[in-house]
Amino acid sequence: MSTTLPSDTPALQRLEAELRGAHAAWQQRGLKLDLTRGKPGPEQVALASALDGALGGDFSGDGIDDTRGYGGLLGIPEARRLFGELLQAPPEQTLVGGNSSLQLMYQCISFAYLHGIGGQPPWREQGAVRFLCPTPGYDRHFRICEALGIEMTPLPLSEEGPDMDAVEEAVSDPAVKGIWCVPHFSNPSGICYSEETVGRMARLGQRAAPDFRVFWDLAYAIHDFAPGAPELPPDLLELCRQTKTEDSVFLFGSTSKISFAGGGVAALATSADNLKWFSRHLAVTTVGPDKVNQLRHVRLFPDLHALREHMRGHAALLRPRFAAVDSVLADTLGHRQKSPYGRWNTPRGGYFVMFNTRAGTAATVVQLAAEAGLALTPAGATWPRGHDPDDSDIRIAPSVPSITEVKQAMALFADCIRLATVQAVLAEHGG
Amino acid sequence: MSTTLPSDTPALQRLEAELRGAHAAWQQRGLKLDLTRGKPGPEQVALASALDGALGGDFSGDGIDDTRGYGGLLGIPEARRLFGELLQAPPEQTLVGGNSSLQLMYQCISFAYLHGIGGQPPWREQGAVRFLCPTPGYDRHFRICEALGIEMTPLPLSEEGPDMDAVEEAVSDPAVKGIWCVPHFSNPSGICYSEETVGRMARLGQRAAPDFRVFWDLAYAIHDFAPGAPELPPDLLELCRQTKTEDSVFLFGSTSKISFAGGGVAALATSADNLKWFSRHLAVTTVGPDKVNQLRHVRLFPDLHALREHMRGHAALLRPRFAAVDSVLADTLGHRQKSPYGRWNTPRGGYFVMFNTRAGTAATVVQLAAEAGLALTPAGATWPRGHDPDDSDIRIAPSVPSITEVKQAMALFADCIRLATVQAVLAEHGG
Repeated sequence: MSTTLPSDTPALQRLEAELRGAHAAWQQRGLKLDLTRGKPGPEQVALASALDGALGGDFSGDGIDDTRGYGGLLGIPEARRLFGELLQAPPEQTLVGGNSSLQLMYQCISFAYLHGIGGQPPWREQGAVRFLCPTPGYDRHFRICEALGIEMTPLPLSEEGPDMDAVEEAVSDPAVKGIWCVPHFSNPSGICYSEETVGRMARLGQRAAPDFRVFWDLAYAIHDFAPGAPELPPDLLELCRQTKTEDSVFLFGSTSKISFAGGGVAALATSADNLKWFSRHLAVTTVGPDKVNQLRHVRLFPDLHALREHMRGHAALLRPRFAAVDSVLADTLGHRQKSPYGRWNTPRGGYFVMFNTRAGTAATVVQLAAEAGLALTPAGATWPRGHDPDDSDIRIAPSVPSITEVKQAMALFADCIRLATVQAVLAEHGG
Repeated sequence: MSTTLPSDTPALQRLEAELRGAHAAWQQRGLKLDLTRGKPGPEQVALASALDGALGGDFSGDGIDDTRGYGGLLGIPEARRLFGELLQAPPEQTLVGGNSSLQLMYQCISFAYLHGIGGQPPWREQGAVRFLCPTPGYDRHFRICEALGIEMTPLPLSEEGPDMDAVEEAVSDPAVKGIWCVPHFSNPSGICYSEETVGRMARLGQRAAPDFRVFWDLAYAIHDFAPGAPELPPDLLELCRQTKTEDSVFLFGSTSKISFAGGGVAALATSADNLKWFSRHLAVTTVGPDKVNQLRHVRLFPDLHALREHMRGHAALLRPRFAAVDSVLADTLGHRQKSPYGRWNTPRGGYFVMFNTRAGTAATVVQLAAEAGLALTPAGATWPRGHDPDDSDIRIAPSVPSITEVKQAMALFADCIRLATVQAVLAEHGG
């Protein structure tokens, strides 16, 4: 098949019949493929298997006789240092918690919602409050807002990050309390915020409500896998200190995509005042985090250098999978910026390839793929409330399947793209 | 010194001078003793050291290829079975989470507060809501209510459990949404609810609001250490099933006082409907618990029998410490039910000895002890909002110090009790 799209109806009809045949053939094969969630594959988590048993019977930490005991709400000192390096934050402004950075995000928001932050009334008492949601974004971020009745304003995301003119204008409304950011290898667009974007983010606190916070999710801080990947974004907390806006940011990180997806360690870095506020409310909910697992992590990864070395192993596993995605798409659909069937990116880090279908066909593609045994993230999932106004964004997560499976899944995906596109064009032709 | 209390003023004055001298001598010794929190001591947690490394490189579970991955919001099947045994609940009604049962309690309450439970409006929209608090109780339970603005009604606690006549009358008020219970070796009174009490608890759902819940904290389910300890309380969930009140209870447990205090595993058991409600809200806050640590626990403790065997080691460490508390007090203050200086109990399980001072002297005792280097839980901590109307309850937690330290701490404690008592009696004499 050619990678072009015929323009006359009879040729389109012939192509559609051919593609329907191809789709039926896929259905016959009884495949069970999955490109849904962005999680490390089995070979990746196995790289950290030494975590279990890493302590060799020595449970003592830095200034802590025995990490098996209660307490230590802020985490063990050496874990706070490690995550301080990762998040570019002073250890004393870094809290290390349990296995989930999502939980830390939820807690920041729910505490502000229930109790207020920055000396302001609780968000629940302020009438309608709103978060800015650069889109496409991470569905689990959006679900937190949805669960608490926080309104969401989608904002366009360019190669440089969110449209900062729009952001700056929006935050002048005191009902705007937050913005969701994945600044490095953004989920799912793969973009990395530019230095200018980060600088303007750091200054938002000067024009926003006193209880506005930037939610800075560094989930993919050291997750580059291809040469030429951009450097980590500039040190947001330091920029904020220079402009006296330190209270306006919450930074999050975790080892979920470094050690074990479900058995890692997560952290929060922010201003000293915010951290005091957070720990005061956190202390009501728990006696402290699992310090033993924190100790395991620092024994295996004593510093940022060790983390980066470890991530080379991840990169070696991810690189060929992402290369397979691009090469199958290029072979079947043409060039990623010129194909008549859609656009996609070739990120140098992170966990996702973003595919933009012809407007109005993403849901159909996901449906066609499901019929042939390929699970994709639901169309619209990358938009607030699951509503993609253009029905165009599809998130592809190729980390878990084998390279052979990725190739097979992408060949099937490309056929679904082509079929949906041809059917849409025919429909426009009145065919 | 004698264990009696003189009745005439001059003798009291002489005794007071003597006791002040003794207190000053304690102060000279520069001691640093701590009987505050009820946590396992270093030798206890060391009994479970094999947890780290327990997996021997095999991270696969029951129907789960790899516990290192994401997901599994309800916990791994074998951990749900184990905690089902511990909480006397069907595995499919048992959720196993992270390291903190307190967090599960907070989540139950905050989800009901934010979103409502049992098809009722959110608690935050129902005006004043209230929890019943059998007292003395666990300060961290009370702090959850306090943080969310939930009113608390203290209720008397007898050797049989809470006064069930009072409880049954109170729950007929639809503003009453919960009751805090530690039914087995209650924190801190050490009492075990009687079969009748448990039976009446199971039926509360018949007369309470549809969103009323019993919070049943089985923190010390298998934590007996002395012969003649009462059996586990009757199976609450089964009793509830018989009276169709299964939705009215939340059961909690953890291995915090079995394996590692901070690095254990916690669980929640309840009705199928409640569990569905809980997981729906939980899914917004996290992708899932640390399944690797759950797997470590079931490898070390495959069933309830293994847990009980393990607890024999704990009992051997706790028994002499509790015996030391009683023997020092008996030697210095007389019989625990007849002493002129106060009353105390001799629990056969759990983590606490409850001491009742002469009314109005508990805070003074804690202060005197602190001056001489002995940290005690603040007076009043076992009451809602930290307010003990009689200023009489002191919680003694002897698990962490060595036996020598426990003896020393209790000798000092007894001297503080005697000094505070004599001073109080003298003050009453107008002396």
